[in-house]
Parts: sequence; C-alpha cells; structure tokens
Amino acid sequence: MTTGVRRRMGVDERRQQLIGVALDLFSRRSPEDVSIDEIAAAAGISRPLVYHYFPGKQSLYEAALRRAADELADRFLEPPEGPLGARLLRVMGRFFDFVDEHGPGFSALMRGGPAVGSSTANAMIDGVRQAAYEQIIAHLGVEDPPARLELVVRSWVSLAESTALIWLDGRRIPREELEIQLVHDFAALAAVSAAYDEEMAGIVLRVLTQEPEEGPFGDLLARLSALAPA
Amino acid sequence: MTTGVRRRMGVDERRQQLIGVALDLFSRRSPEDVSIDEIAAAAGISRPLVYHYFPGKQSLYEAALRRAADELADRFLEPPEGPLGARLLRVMGRFFDFVDEHGPGFSALMRGGPAVGSSTANAMIDGVRQAAYEQIIAHLGVEDPPARLELVVRSWVSLAESTALIWLDGRRIPREELEIQLVHDFAALAAVSAAYDEEMAGIVLRVLTQEPEEGPFGDLLARLSALAPA
Repeated sequence: MTTGVRRRMGVDERRQQLIGVALDLFSRRSPEDVSIDEIAAAAGISRPLVYHYFPGKQSLYEAALRRAADELADRFLEPPEGPLGARLLRVMGRFFDFVDEHGPGFSALMRGGPAVGSSTANAMIDGVRQAAYEQIIAHLGVEDPPARLELVVRSWVSLAESTALIWLDGRRIPREELEIQLVHDFAALAAVSAAYDEEMAGIVLRVLTQEPEEGPFGDLLARLSALAPA
Repeated sequence: MTTGVRRRMGVDERRQQLIGVALDLFSRRSPEDVSIDEIAAAAGISRPLVYHYFPGKQSLYEAALRRAADELADRFLEPPEGPLGARLLRVMGRFFDFVDEHGPGFSALMRGGPAVGSSTANAMIDGVRQAAYEQIIAHLGVEDPPARLELVVRSWVSLAESTALIWLDGRRIPREELEIQLVHDFAALAAVSAAYDEEMAGIVLRVLTQEPEEGPFGDLLARLSALAPA
C-alpha cells in the first residue's frame, strides 16, 4: 500500500513538473510553435517519457491551460475591504501581471486558431470569465443581479480582455495607465447604464457615495468635470 | 467560347445559391448541427452535387462566412454626414439587425469551437473588426490615429461584439436600448481616455462640440448630470 501511494505521488509530481515546464513554453511562444521535443528537453526527460504522462501535445496544452486558468481566476480574488475602486485597481494590477507573464500564449489563446481553439480551451476561458464576473458581483454586494448589471459586468470583463490583447500588440501605452483606465471604464459603463435605468442608478449611486474623493472614481469625476465645456 | 462562358456563369450561380442556402442554415443553428444532406435538401439538389461545388462542409461554411463577413462590414458603412452620435446609432441599428438575423450562427462563431474556429474563420472575423475600426476612425476625421484612440475604438468594437453576444443569450434587454447604450459607451470610453491624455481630450472635445444637444451624446450628458450627487 505504502509503496503504491509513493509511486502515485511520483507520477503526480512528474506531471506537475511537466505542466509547469509546458506552461512556461506555451506562455512565451504561440502554442503551435512549441514541440513535444522541446518540452521534453526543457524538463530533462525523453520524448517517450512525456508521452507516458500525456497522450499528446493537446492534452499537455490543456493541462497547462487549466493551471493558467486557475491562476488567473485566483488573481480576481480580493478581500472585500476598503473602497471598491481601489479593490478593482489591485485586481487589474494582478491581471496585467498575468498578461505580462503569459503574453504570447495569452494572445494566441484569446485570438483562437486550430491549435488552441478546442472546446475544452473555450470552456476554460468561459470558466475564468464566470469567476471574474462572480467576484465583481460579490464585491458590489448584489445578491440577485438584474440583467443590466450582468451586462455591464460581463461586457467589462470582455473589455479588460480586449484591452490587454491590444496592449500586448506593441505595448504602446504604459500598462499602469491601462489598469486605472479599466477601473474608470467600469465606472463609465455602469454610469451609462444607470443614466437610463432606475435600478442601475440605485446600485451605482450606492457604490459611488462610498468612494473617497481621492480614490480612482473620485479622481475621474474631478477630471471629467474639468474637461466638460462650460 | 460563348458556351464556355455560359457554363461558367451557371457554376457560379449555383455556388452563390448554395452559399445563400448554407448561410441561412448556419445562421439559424449552430454550424456543427447543420449537415451537407440538409443543405442539399434545402437547395433542392443531390448530396454529390453539393460536393461537386464545394469539397466539404468546412469550405461551404467558410464561403457562407465570407458572404456574412462582407455583409456585416457593409453595415458599418455610413455617409459622413450629420452629427457623429446619430451616425453611430444608425450603424448600431444595422449591426443589431445583422446579429438578429444570424443569431445562433453568430454566437457559435464568436464563441469559437472546433467546427468554426479555423484560422480562415478567425482571419475573416479580424477583417470585419478592422473594417469597423477604419470606418469609425474615418468618421472621426483623424488621419493618423494615436495609440490611445486606436485602443478606444478597437476595444469599443469588441464591446459591441460582447454586448451583442450577451443580448443573444436570452434577449433580456430590448435591443434598441443596447444600440443607444453602445453609442454612449463609445462616448464614455473616449471621455475616460481624454481625462488622462491631452491629445485624446482635443479629439473628444472637437467631436462633442459638433454634437447637437438633442442628439444621443447630448442626451447622455444631461442624464449623467441629473444623476450626479449634488
């Protein structure tokens, strides 16, 4: 029994090591450009031994993606303390850290294509989107989100993705600027929705009145007022 | 010679008819649920005859997608006349017409998956995004768009996509509301960018001062002012 348990542990450790090595390679280059030979070399084992643990590149890619997806979902976790704008800004910092670390792999995955666009991969992406959505709804303190709030939060999550992808394509704008911009974009999209819907107006006003003047939301309001033509 | 030309015309007409029939079927159901048999039946020809014109379902799907992509890109064409907000609102109306007409196929395509996520399909989607981007830049009258304006326009195009996908999932919000909301979202994203960047502020102010008070942008500003805590 003991030996059996030890052997299973060994297998699992080797699998975890391979997943780590593969994730690193899949992050730094487009997954279709990474070969099993390279993964084997980076892990210091033979090509047949890789196949002993994973039936093929797709299954190793999906295991690496699983780890990356869990890691990204974790970065949306934030203690429910302090002003909401500051919480969201910390989350955006960790999101851009992730995007920065996994740049080429993140681009390849999100832009789709035959090597990455499997239904397993798509389900994992949707899982991360759902985790991000649920985190934000929880931070807003809304039990049963109305359709308009759901739309604002889900479409903002997609805006964060596309902003990150555009950033990766040349990095022409400092990421710190985009992190705070996305916090403001959230407020702006919520405000637009609130301008036409009473229930949304109630939610947005409740959140905004709890924000400090010197926080990111207060700062935006001051800057927008300065911008508006007299 | 004449006969040859006639025969080629016949082939092309038949291909165009098949593409139309296939696009209709691929629009109404997820493409993986549509069979060549069904396309043949709907076109009133035999299954082998379909294969005479298209080597397989994927090539017929891509031809249908090509037609849909051209059609969608056309809907972003708008004469450069009158206030910008009203132009954008007309474009959004045509965009939602398209999404409405091709709902299930649009969802399946944009959510990816093995049946639709080919690199050809992805390249066509990117082509439509690029056409939409170029149209909007042209309407803004900007010759050499700075990186921040490019980001605002491209990320707004992606916001329009995700808003349409969320709308299709249950249609819980009237589409007319989303059409105007997206026009406002554009203004809001541009305003956020302008709040932190002088060049963007110049572009946004130039556009806003040309907008009539009763247009969608003016309407939003009035509603947001009413919403702001005194």
